[in-house]
Amino acid sequence: MKTQVAIIGAGPSGLLLGHLLKAEGIDCVVLERQTGDYVLGRIRAGVLEQITVQLMERLGLDARLKAEGLVEEGFNLADGERLIRIDVANLTGKTVVVYGQTEITKDLMDAAAPRGLPVIYQAGDVAVHDIESDAPYVTYTKDGKEERIDARFIIGCDGFHGPSRKAIPASVGREYERVYPFGWLGILADVPPCNHELIYANHERGFALASMRSHTRSRYYVDVPLTEKIEDWSDDRIWDELAIRLGPDAAANMTRGPSIEKSIAPLRSYVFEPMRHGSLLLCGDAAHIVPPTGAKGLNLAASDVHYAAEAITAYFKKADNDAIPAYSTKALARVWKAERFSWSLTKLMHRFPDDGPFERAMQVAELDYIANSVAAQTSIAENYVGLPV
Amino acid sequence: MKTQVAIIGAGPSGLLLGHLLKAEGIDCVVLERQTGDYVLGRIRAGVLEQITVQLMERLGLDARLKAEGLVEEGFNLADGERLIRIDVANLTGKTVVVYGQTEITKDLMDAAAPRGLPVIYQAGDVAVHDIESDAPYVTYTKDGKEERIDARFIIGCDGFHGPSRKAIPASVGREYERVYPFGWLGILADVPPCNHELIYANHERGFALASMRSHTRSRYYVDVPLTEKIEDWSDDRIWDELAIRLGPDAAANMTRGPSIEKSIAPLRSYVFEPMRHGSLLLCGDAAHIVPPTGAKGLNLAASDVHYAAEAITAYFKKADNDAIPAYSTKALARVWKAERFSWSLTKLMHRFPDDGPFERAMQVAELDYIANSVAAQTSIAENYVGLPV
Repeated sequence: MKTQVAIIGAGPSGLLLGHLLKAEGIDCVVLERQTGDYVLGRIRAGVLEQITVQLMERLGLDARLKAEGLVEEGFNLADGERLIRIDVANLTGKTVVVYGQTEITKDLMDAAAPRGLPVIYQAGDVAVHDIESDAPYVTYTKDGKEERIDARFIIGCDGFHGPSRKAIPASVGREYERVYPFGWLGILADVPPCNHELIYANHERGFALASMRSHTRSRYYVDVPLTEKIEDWSDDRIWDELAIRLGPDAAANMTRGPSIEKSIAPLRSYVFEPMRHGSLLLCGDAAHIVPPTGAKGLNLAASDVHYAAEAITAYFKKADNDAIPAYSTKALARVWKAERFSWSLTKLMHRFPDDGPFERAMQVAELDYIANSVAAQTSIAENYVGLPV
Repeated sequence: MKTQVAIIGAGPSGLLLGHLLKAEGIDCVVLERQTGDYVLGRIRAGVLEQITVQLMERLGLDARLKAEGLVEEGFNLADGERLIRIDVANLTGKTVVVYGQTEITKDLMDAAAPRGLPVIYQAGDVAVHDIESDAPYVTYTKDGKEERIDARFIIGCDGFHGPSRKAIPASVGREYERVYPFGWLGILADVPPCNHELIYANHERGFALASMRSHTRSRYYVDVPLTEKIEDWSDDRIWDELAIRLGPDAAANMTRGPSIEKSIAPLRSYVFEPMRHGSLLLCGDAAHIVPPTGAKGLNLAASDVHYAAEAITAYFKKADNDAIPAYSTKALARVWKAERFSWSLTKLMHRFPDDGPFERAMQVAELDYIANSVAAQTSIAENYVGLPV
């Protein structure tokens, strides 16, 4: 098979990129190792920045997002005693939208066939070849047969564990990484949220996050040591812990219910540079990971996709040979700022085992400073809604 | 001897407090272990926040400060490639004044005799007694004789190593401390500054600070491991290192000259709580230390003195019995915020031996974010000029 752009991965970034290229009349194929249902079964983030909403709008795929998404004008930091509201709408003139990653993926997936975007599911053993040439290709197996797609560009939207990044020679790439000494224990339940806006809490006993996917579906987290086992956390134990860490007001409004999903996820900051090598471009988790604090992961993938679609379009439609080489620098400038925000919010809101009383006092002082400073609140708010693309 | 307030320490905070109380007609005596010349010989900070300038104004002791002080409308962060100017005046409507701590001390010292503020120098073996009672007293030796001052309050303005803080029982107090893995190697020279505004630089080779005391006297620093010996740092070596770390533009404008003073100072964050016990109040370094990054030390002492003077005045002149007990909480709220700012600016601008490539990338990303965000610059600026008292 021959195409202009081979996209590896049919998560939200791969599908979004496929649709954006299709809309420009650029030929592409999306390859996915799993089934569509498996991809939709992944529970992920649900807070969309404007860049992500705007891309869905531009594609005309925002009808359900507009109908079902919850527009959020602010969020809260809690220090165990009070809620510090970050009035995002007033401070930045912008808002975010709560709309699950699963829903975005579904909207993009449903539109693929009608719009002629080919998505090949259950493509096994995907490998990229000749990325340093102008004629790279992808091989994979499907229904027991070896297949090959020739393309001008290959885009790795295949997540942290996918083959794309690994195809870039070690001599070329540089990794930056920080692993955090705790994980997030998450519970998803069909109960109304305890608060109409997110609450990030730094309590004596640790971190907690109250969030939601809709008016009837809630997503809560507490941080736990990485040694904890999910079997030791009954639903009741999680609800009890949440009630303590989120504080009495949130606890009073919290509706308990059976978990639909329950898991412990590690937290990691990771960046791979460069995000392009030859004819291979990386987007989203394939190139970088943020801890979930601040909900930057999906949105960062969306801005990568935006830059990648722009560069590829410039190449094919304006014969611009500088756009592709400029992609990595352009994308990374925004990536690093989002990494910084996620890292700093993670440090502010979690207890670290190595921290002593002074470091704890610094968290308290920073929260107190934020509570009293419009400038500090504005800085947090502008990062939360997403820095300019 | 009997007085209303015994002040231990004739550094800038002790003298400032003495003058403020005198101006309210409250009787006080200042005790100092060293000679006046020794106190004036100490080389210290030189950037004054508005609170410090205003207190000198209120006392009518600001003539020389107004004539000789350099009003600074901004300062710079350097990341090895560029200067990021923090336009303090435009962002906050306020300015800071460069005027050496030594000069402030001299102005306060010179005004002591004319205004009838008794300062007893070379008072040895100072000890405080009965601080949990309403009739505390101070003992000391002077010219070989034992002396005693009875007072209603004792104020410890005697620095980190003075006897006041140590008089508070361990069961009552709590210490918070962070020691940094480097020191500041400082050089003072009678040469014009390389830039009319301060430059804080985070270069690959480490931290550097270009500052000044006047148009003709410069103060520079580089950070060094604590194992370094001052003997190994000739003036030439220091100037060479500064030229590299501050970058080519600053280096081109840097005038070298023989050092008047040269020393290595350790960096420490320290807070003692509470700042009052019984009839003893602590001000400035006696209760807290900040690393010099951001120049908060003297200014924090000034705001402590302001709160202490207010509380003592309320006690004597309005028979207000709540003011003294409220002092510690009031002073500490501002102390903790200044500790936070000094700590975070120290972390942003120095290389830490334990930091890996990710942490270094976070510094670069934060500087890049600051360079592009008015909110971030405003947050830094409002801390730099001093948060509201």
